Amino acid sequence: MDFFYAFWGVEGLWNHQHLIGIRALTREDILSILDRAMHWREFLEHSPKSSQNLSGYSVVCLFFEPSTRTRLSFEMAGRLLGMNVVNFSTEGSSLEKGESFRDTVRTIARMKPDVVVVRHRRSGIPEYIADLLPCHVINAGDGLREHPTQALLDLLVIRRKFGRVEGLRVAIVGDVLHSRVARSLSLALGKLGNSVAVSGSPTLVPEEVEALGVERVFPIERAIQGADVVYLLRIQRERQEAGYFPSLKEYFCFFGLKESLLYALKDGAIIMHPGPVNRNVEIEYELVEHGASLIEEQVTCGVAVRMAVLEMLIGEGKGS
Amino acid sequence: MDFFYAFWGVEGLWNHQHLIGIRALTREDILSILDRAMHWREFLEHSPKSSQNLSGYSVVCLFFEPSTRTRLSFEMAGRLLGMNVVNFSTEGSSLEKGESFRDTVRTIARMKPDVVVVRHRRSGIPEYIADLLPCHVINAGDGLREHPTQALLDLLVIRRKFGRVEGLRVAIVGDVLHSRVARSLSLALGKLGNSVAVSGSPTLVPEEVEALGVERVFPIERAIQGADVVYLLRIQRERQEAGYFPSLKEYFCFFGLKESLLYALKDGAIIMHPGPVNRNVEIEYELVEHGASLIEEQVTCGVAVRMAVLEMLIGEGKGS
Amino acid sequence: MDFFYAFWGVEGLWNHQHLIGIRALTREDILSILDRAMHWREFLEHSPKSSQNLSGYSVVCLFFEPSTRTRLSFEMAGRLLGMNVVNFSTEGSSLEKGESFRDTVRTIARMKPDVVVVRHRRSGIPEYIADLLPCHVINAGDGLREHPTQALLDLLVIRRKFGRVEGLRVAIVGDVLHSRVARSLSLALGKLGNSVAVSGSPTLVPEEVEALGVERVFPIERAIQGADVVYLLRIQRERQEAGYFPSLKEYFCFFGLKESLLYALKDGAIIMHPGPVNRNVEIEYELVEHGASLIEEQVTCGVAVRMAVLEMLIGEGKGS
Repeated sequence: MDFFYAFWGVEGLWNHQHLIGIRALTREDILSILDRAMHWREFLEHSPKSSQNLSGYSVVCLFFEPSTRTRLSFEMAGRLLGMNVVNFSTEGSSLEKGESFRDTVRTIARMKPDVVVVRHRRSGIPEYIADLLPCHVINAGDGLREHPTQALLDLLVIRRKFGRVEGLRVAIVGDVLHSRVARSLSLALGKLGNSVAVSGSPTLVPEEVEALGVERVFPIERAIQGADVVYLLRIQRERQEAGYFPSLKEYFCFFGLKESLLYALKDGAIIMHPGPVNRNVEIEYELVEHGASLIEEQVTCGVAVRMAVLEMLIGEGKGS
Repeated sequence: MDFFYAFWGVEGLWNHQHLIGIRALTREDILSILDRAMHWREFLEHSPKSSQNLSGYSVVCLFFEPSTRTRLSFEMAGRLLGMNVVNFSTEGSSLEKGESFRDTVRTIARMKPDVVVVRHRRSGIPEYIADLLPCHVINAGDGLREHPTQALLDLLVIRRKFGRVEGLRVAIVGDVLHSRVARSLSLALGKLGNSVAVSGSPTLVPEEVEALGVERVFPIERAIQGADVVYLLRIQRERQEAGYFPSLKEYFCFFGLKESLLYALKDGAIIMHPGPVNRNVEIEYELVEHGASLIEEQVTCGVAVRMAVLEMLIGEGKGS
Repeated sequence: MDFFYAFWGVEGLWNHQHLIGIRALTREDILSILDRAMHWREFLEHSPKSSQNLSGYSVVCLFFEPSTRTRLSFEMAGRLLGMNVVNFSTEGSSLEKGESFRDTVRTIARMKPDVVVVRHRRSGIPEYIADLLPCHVINAGDGLREHPTQALLDLLVIRRKFGRVEGLRVAIVGDVLHSRVARSLSLALGKLGNSVAVSGSPTLVPEEVEALGVERVFPIERAIQGADVVYLLRIQRERQEAGYFPSLKEYFCFFGLKESLLYALKDGAIIMHPGPVNRNVEIEYELVEHGASLIEEQVTCGVAVRMAVLEMLIGEGKGS
């Protein structure tokens, strides 16, 4: 099959029972999540803002990789819906006592949560868990493969800004090769009929990424020309050591988004980044808080989208 | 007195104010907890499954040893009853700043929780705390002494399987010498009129354990002969270094439960293990998920038993 | 300006939107918080004790320094009011991935909490955050500057004991130079018309502290002579290494509160300490649990004061 097959392992399954990846979603699936998330985005503007829609349901957040925003975002989303949210991290756990991953996960399932949210550095773990457990599973990022709620929240930001999520031109800039965010987002944008250009250091944007249905465009100036959305990917410092580029300073110089490049964007274009941002690496310091930047709005939309996903999965389970 | 006296320190007190150990419980105490736990085990099958029976009550989980299942289990149990559950672990705490254990515990008590759940590597800490604090104390494992909620959940599994918890033959196999689980379980089984055989490496099952009212039987084949329940104890890797047995591989070879031994069990016999399991050490890899294994059911029963215990302690405090 | 100006940076602002420091509070502000806190202190005696006054409001506890009692106290206070309380600590967070402090804080704010409680080792961080975020900010201790809820809870203890918080004589003993507790408390006591004597090792009680409106009195016997309240400050072990005093043993010998000094106190005088206590350093071992010691009562009053503060800030936000 294609290049990404090796990363993806078995096909992601989305039968309304789990959210493993964008790959398994239809255009209609995506649009219905966004519809519901629009409602919750509105809800977040008010205070007090408790809902009891999912009161009596439990979610366990199983994070095997460190994370601020994603874990906190799921925790907030669950709590705002009245859920019982329990966090599990690998520190201080039985995994340290030599228990197998399989047994740890099965043990947690037998405490009878309704939803397990999992992040793991290995691709395919969410399916493995979905297969093993009787509850709903949400992939909060697995290895180099998918991060579906990130893509959905990005779409929500775009929809709220442009009133639609189709027929747009999106430039994704950065470490496409190692980015599960880029994968999920490209797939989602493609399904909805947008065009995606990817750019950055050619070492991090190799030919194989075209399997995602995106066009490689160099240099970055050409990629962002006429774009509605410029989406910057986070650079891991380890990539420098691995030789993908000489230094963070040079990376910024050649592939970072700078004020001097903004002229190339369409009127009303927006800047996005999944965070955490390395200021003066992927993006010039001041641009993070520029009027065109919706980086912080992504955080709020993250909570809204996760509320919608939790609600739809559990709603499905009830046969509604 | 007897050999275990040194470990146990002062006599555990169960006057319905605290749950320190099985030792202080009567047969009737145990049966009444199991009755109530049966109710909660049923409750756990449903979804949504919130109860507000203990709404407005607070529990602090004070874990001075790492733990996945026990802490999570108490957290779940408390939350499902509508309690305010707060976790306290030794990391990032005042203990690191040189505060005495006594002062840390007293400080937490003065935040006015209704229940403190404590796990500590030293035997006797729960009584020490119960003496010091005005709230209910639940022992979630103290040193080599007791782990009463584990024994109670094991009894619940047995009762649900056999319809009774008396007149059964139970074989406990493994590190009896260092196991608070074995101690609590043996005492409980004895109080209810079951017969208990202990077996495993003779170095870990010395004569002194007979003080628990159990019979030492070697080799393991003879111990499990005709057993209704085979209960495997976890092996700590440190025991190997201490010379109790030559290697984990040899341990498995001589004392692990293998498919080839199942012939010796009664029809309908079950396999249990408190977890976390070391597959291919205490038990052959595939047997963990064998039809006779109720290891996962123990996890669910753990939540149910802890709900019952929380309810009964607080109910007692109300004079009901 | 004065010596402390350098530590304090910009002037603390208390316009009922935030609680940054005692400095910005009026006498009336302080008394109205205490009035409300008296109510909650009473409330804490009962069980079950849930209130839903702030149901639907969220608070994020952002602790950049380790803390047991303060974090737990805010968590308890929020939960008892029915709030959604989420903890954020620096471990396992994006700060470790190189995200700027500014971006971390802005990210958290965009999850739309109503209140952020912050502790940080740098003075001035709470204002910086208050400026940046649209929500209420509570300072839970910033560097060497302020710790306003500690001072307020201390006042609550005093008011409950003496029926008033004015016209009293308070001796503060210990590391005044490095204590944000001493600063906040001295300011608060001064605003309410009490007289404050500070004492201890002269190296830790230099002339500059008089800018707080306190009187330096040596030796400690003279400072506590006729005092209604003796307030002992915690000694950080690092101070010994920095040469402020030769050893903890000598510190206790010369500046610790000992039974033999109690004769100097007024009848009915009380002993306080913000905790965690170093027994036999700041105070003789047995005195911690002496009848005159209200050290534990401070813990309970801490929960009550924080409930009052949360309620008043959010009440203000509602325009009530």
